[in-house]
Amino acid sequence: MSSPTAAVLIIGNEILSGRTQDINLNYIANKLTAIGVRLAEARVVADIENDIVEAVNDLRKKYTYVFTTGGIGPTHDDITSDSIGKAFGRRVSENAEARARLEAHYAGATLNAARLRMARVPEGASLIENPVSAAPGFRLENVYVLAGVPNIMRAMLDSIIATLRHGPEIHSISVSGYVAESTVAEELEAIAKRYPMLDIGSYPWVRQARFGTALVVRGTDKASAEKAADEIFALVESKGGNPEREIIQPGA
Amino acid sequence: MSSPTAAVLIIGNEILSGRTQDINLNYIANKLTAIGVRLAEARVVADIENDIVEAVNDLRKKYTYVFTTGGIGPTHDDITSDSIGKAFGRRVSENAEARARLEAHYAGATLNAARLRMARVPEGASLIENPVSAAPGFRLENVYVLAGVPNIMRAMLDSIIATLRHGPEIHSISVSGYVAESTVAEELEAIAKRYPMLDIGSYPWVRQARFGTALVVRGTDKASAEKAADEIFALVESKGGNPEREIIQPGA
Repeated sequence: MSSPTAAVLIIGNEILSGRTQDINLNYIANKLTAIGVRLAEARVVADIENDIVEAVNDLRKKYTYVFTTGGIGPTHDDITSDSIGKAFGRRVSENAEARARLEAHYAGATLNAARLRMARVPEGASLIENPVSAAPGFRLENVYVLAGVPNIMRAMLDSIIATLRHGPEIHSISVSGYVAESTVAEELEAIAKRYPMLDIGSYPWVRQARFGTALVVRGTDKASAEKAADEIFALVESKGGNPEREIIQPGA
Repeated sequence: MSSPTAAVLIIGNEILSGRTQDINLNYIANKLTAIGVRLAEARVVADIENDIVEAVNDLRKKYTYVFTTGGIGPTHDDITSDSIGKAFGRRVSENAEARARLEAHYAGATLNAARLRMARVPEGASLIENPVSAAPGFRLENVYVLAGVPNIMRAMLDSIIATLRHGPEIHSISVSGYVAESTVAEELEAIAKRYPMLDIGSYPWVRQARFGTALVVRGTDKASAEKAADEIFALVESKGGNPEREIIQPGA
């Protein structure tokens, strides 16, 4: 069974200037992993139309889904909607339903030109609900356009996640112990070769000046994942690494 | 004066599965901004040779510098060195100086095959010092290959930053106040149009259930940046936003 694939496109000068630490990618990655969608690539681009258009057109051809974050607010630097329209060759215009949602949200206050800017979406797009601040995201074919503000992005993603094609469940087990990577690397490679259907990663860590390694087994075949984790556990134990085993539940 | 440009390529399944929150991009972004190098793009790819090769070859042609993180350790999933070799069409072999550094670091302990793997670099590469754990990074033409472990990556970057071509200093001023983005958007756009040489961004925030916006002016022309910040300060004040002004010092 093949897994659906995805890319994330983070749009925003503030990430590339270092002003802002992105936390959206990690949230999306966990949610996708939890439903068996393989996140294959992520990109960060600036608020430059041509850069956004090129990235969107490259990614939407390569992967089942593309999720963009950022650039759908009311200010002049919010150019995602126009850029997506350009990428698809679609006119961008005011969406009646989006306008109605904004009118309901800003009831009594002025729906000025800046706020109405948030009702502009490419033609043919369907809206993605924003329970936090009304201004919707949208979907156009396989591209999902989400907010950049983390709590809004999360609400939007949560509202669409059930509509995505789920892949086979990915089982992920971590075996972590006080061993240097290089101490287990050779035997680990032998295990990885015996389980070509699994993805086995090695991640060193330091805790209170003691070195250790987390060895992470991932795959859709649960029995193989458990067997490989057993072998890795025995390997780390044989090196005096006092291993701990943990099932990773992404998006839990 | 044109600014040198850069891309960051983050290599690692653990970022795309959601297991690990990347913090390297933000560090690199701040360091580059501080020396006037414009970080134009970032990508995250999996531990898949073809994906790494394609990304490296795309990015190294587009930008002055490329910085990769991850995949240079001793385990089977550390394939960055081989992938960079392939991208450049260079043979990857044991580097005598890298081996000597590892021998000095592991003095008395076994320099096993896994540890020696960390001495393999593409031919023609120059080494980047690793003061933490000896295993070096390397530079090949305009591509800098750094570790993924944050404290090692930082030490490596810090050791090369002075060797990079610096761009004109980027002046960055933040004006933050209790105003909704949409309240200032129209006047802000007018200001942005009067200062086309500046990058003016708008970033909403929430603090203790009160909404506000940070308006960030960035540019190499200090006088213009200060004048635009003055105008934005007056704008936020006129809306009752009680603004605060702050000079952003990236990488400080």
